[in-house]
Amino acid sequence: MNAETKFAELEVGYNIPAAIGMDEADIQTPCLVVDLDALERNVVKMGNFAKEMGVRHRVHGKMHKSVDVAKLQMELGGACGVCCQKVSEAEAFARGGIKDVLVSNQVRDPAKIDRLARIPRLGARAICCVDDIENVADLSAAATKHGTQIECLVEIDCGAGRCGVTTTPAVVEIAKAIDAAPGLKFSGLQAYQGAMQHLDSYDERKAKIDIAVAMVKDAVDALKAEGLECDIVGGGGTGSYYFEGNSGVYNELQCGSYAFMDADYGRILDKNGNRIDQGEWENALFILTSVMSHAKADKAICDAGLKAQSVDSGLPFIYGRDDVKYVKCSDEHGVIADPDGKLKVNDKLKLVPGHCDPTCNVHDWYVGVRNGKVEALWPVTARGLAY
Amino acid sequence: MNAETKFAELEVGYNIPAAIGMDEADIQTPCLVVDLDALERNVVKMGNFAKEMGVRHRVHGKMHKSVDVAKLQMELGGACGVCCQKVSEAEAFARGGIKDVLVSNQVRDPAKIDRLARIPRLGARAICCVDDIENVADLSAAATKHGTQIECLVEIDCGAGRCGVTTTPAVVEIAKAIDAAPGLKFSGLQAYQGAMQHLDSYDERKAKIDIAVAMVKDAVDALKAEGLECDIVGGGGTGSYYFEGNSGVYNELQCGSYAFMDADYGRILDKNGNRIDQGEWENALFILTSVMSHAKADKAICDAGLKAQSVDSGLPFIYGRDDVKYVKCSDEHGVIADPDGKLKVNDKLKLVPGHCDPTCNVHDWYVGVRNGKVEALWPVTARGLAY
Repeated sequence: MNAETKFAELEVGYNIPAAIGMDEADIQTPCLVVDLDALERNVVKMGNFAKEMGVRHRVHGKMHKSVDVAKLQMELGGACGVCCQKVSEAEAFARGGIKDVLVSNQVRDPAKIDRLARIPRLGARAICCVDDIENVADLSAAATKHGTQIECLVEIDCGAGRCGVTTTPAVVEIAKAIDAAPGLKFSGLQAYQGAMQHLDSYDERKAKIDIAVAMVKDAVDALKAEGLECDIVGGGGTGSYYFEGNSGVYNELQCGSYAFMDADYGRILDKNGNRIDQGEWENALFILTSVMSHAKADKAICDAGLKAQSVDSGLPFIYGRDDVKYVKCSDEHGVIADPDGKLKVNDKLKLVPGHCDPTCNVHDWYVGVRNGKVEALWPVTARGLAY
Repeated sequence: MNAETKFAELEVGYNIPAAIGMDEADIQTPCLVVDLDALERNVVKMGNFAKEMGVRHRVHGKMHKSVDVAKLQMELGGACGVCCQKVSEAEAFARGGIKDVLVSNQVRDPAKIDRLARIPRLGARAICCVDDIENVADLSAAATKHGTQIECLVEIDCGAGRCGVTTTPAVVEIAKAIDAAPGLKFSGLQAYQGAMQHLDSYDERKAKIDIAVAMVKDAVDALKAEGLECDIVGGGGTGSYYFEGNSGVYNELQCGSYAFMDADYGRILDKNGNRIDQGEWENALFILTSVMSHAKADKAICDAGLKAQSVDSGLPFIYGRDDVKYVKCSDEHGVIADPDGKLKVNDKLKLVPGHCDPTCNVHDWYVGVRNGKVEALWPVTARGLAY
């Protein structure tokens, strides 16, 4: 549901799960519930980490897809702006008042390049990534046509194996082309190592980032020798921000999941061997679900299936309960093992989703809760905006 | 996006992927594209099968979540109505003009029961399932309060292992309670065997349905002995409809996926040992995607990741191509093995999704295409409506 949705059309239980001021017990399930206290503590904590390390934090908006959460991260956590993955997401953030937006991705389709070039007219700095010299002329032509500026980061593939170039000469060649192109500004490097974020072991993650840092440092030095300074050297995620932040090479972090946490991230280990959801970050995002059938003694069926979550990174776990377990997810149902028959119909449970990003993408609303009351209703502003 | 969305707010490439009359080549990716000819052929074919078998077909709307597709199934395929899994979906179909709606699921939350009881006021027959005698009084009270009628099917768990009772005496007990309750009408049985639909072997599927048919026949006979006739004996899916349809016991099918097909269903085998997507049904639903990076010689990166699909039942396949293969799905990217370097940036590909239902749930629009032109834009009416 986009920001322009007419709120007057909303009806609790039909297309919105709650109303502000409602008791937590009256929220309609399944829906996303945010523990506002936990979210705020996570946001402040990451803001402090970035400050201590002397780097900026550009929060990853593709995680929550919400203008409201992004603004909270900027206000409470000192974030400098937002990154996202799609031009349509960038448009949603810019339309929502975010002034500094990076599309941390390639933009190649002519229609999308044209839209990207118009984002500064919405009042926002527009930055994108480039991994192919052939893209430069197209970006330049669109910015020139619209009388705007697109800032460009050269993307280095430092281990994720997706977009990005893999050699310093390729980085320098593209950077020089950007620097020479009308309407474009060479603004630095994008080097996110996405493939290591979910490795359990702290030392294994560190080893992967050491490789990334060495690649990036080599590129930064080579660019400097050509007279090209990097305003932004961006990367880092919830599983690695301390490595990039203390590297002396990166100057901008791009963390997303820390704010909400999820089951898959939560199980990775910090340097002391503790799960990161047991101290470093709090679970702030839950799928609230209700038991809707208990026709078998040892099995409860809840109303949160695939329409309420993504299971690409595994099943959710039930928050605060060891006696019952979410064991199977079908389209519209979740099967909960209840060996001791503890649950009854209409009991509510909080699920910690396996993977927050795609789970948020199937919901229209965040229900923000504090002290047992619904305090906030935030639209998932960029939900479904993948264009 | 719900039916009430103000279409005037839509902008191609921001929150809608195409415009009617546009060339297929100009559609913004990633998005859902429907081959209208293939869809219509599938719909007519299933309508003819049901007619030949002498049973009704109540199409499963939770697959496509679209009022427009449901109406096409009723008009072209002779479907008698729609089933769906959530009260909010039922509201969306009833508001969209579907006159006969079954919630093929339990409704237990008091607020949801109240909403269900109001659905007849939207002009639709409202039917739901019951697997717990304690539910009967609540449904009856709500229907009485609103001066409406809720029709109830007793749900039999005939092998799926989710909701539903498992013995004939339990069926009869609940049916009698429904029959005696003001505001309710006992209308029959729900017996969908969801667990066997995706078994590859025709004979294995048949063996599972034989068990289901025997259970249902026993219940129908026992009810008849008590003077309770079943107006509806419902079940059957794309992997089994011929078994239920020819059983002499079931009288209403509930198929969904046949209309669109997907990769997971497509690989099951018909009685001749052929994949059902090679003759029985056509692929009518695709995720249209574009190549957005090809920085490595043997690997193309496309713009359809988890924001464009669900991979709960496996990865998509690339339609009509043996030379390239979708091998990895991350949040916003798909990795395509391109060993011979056949693809270039901005090439478009059609992906057949692993699982259509949850894939449709991450999109706001179906782009209906015929003869290379965009002919229809259908909102995914009940997208996100899981309440």
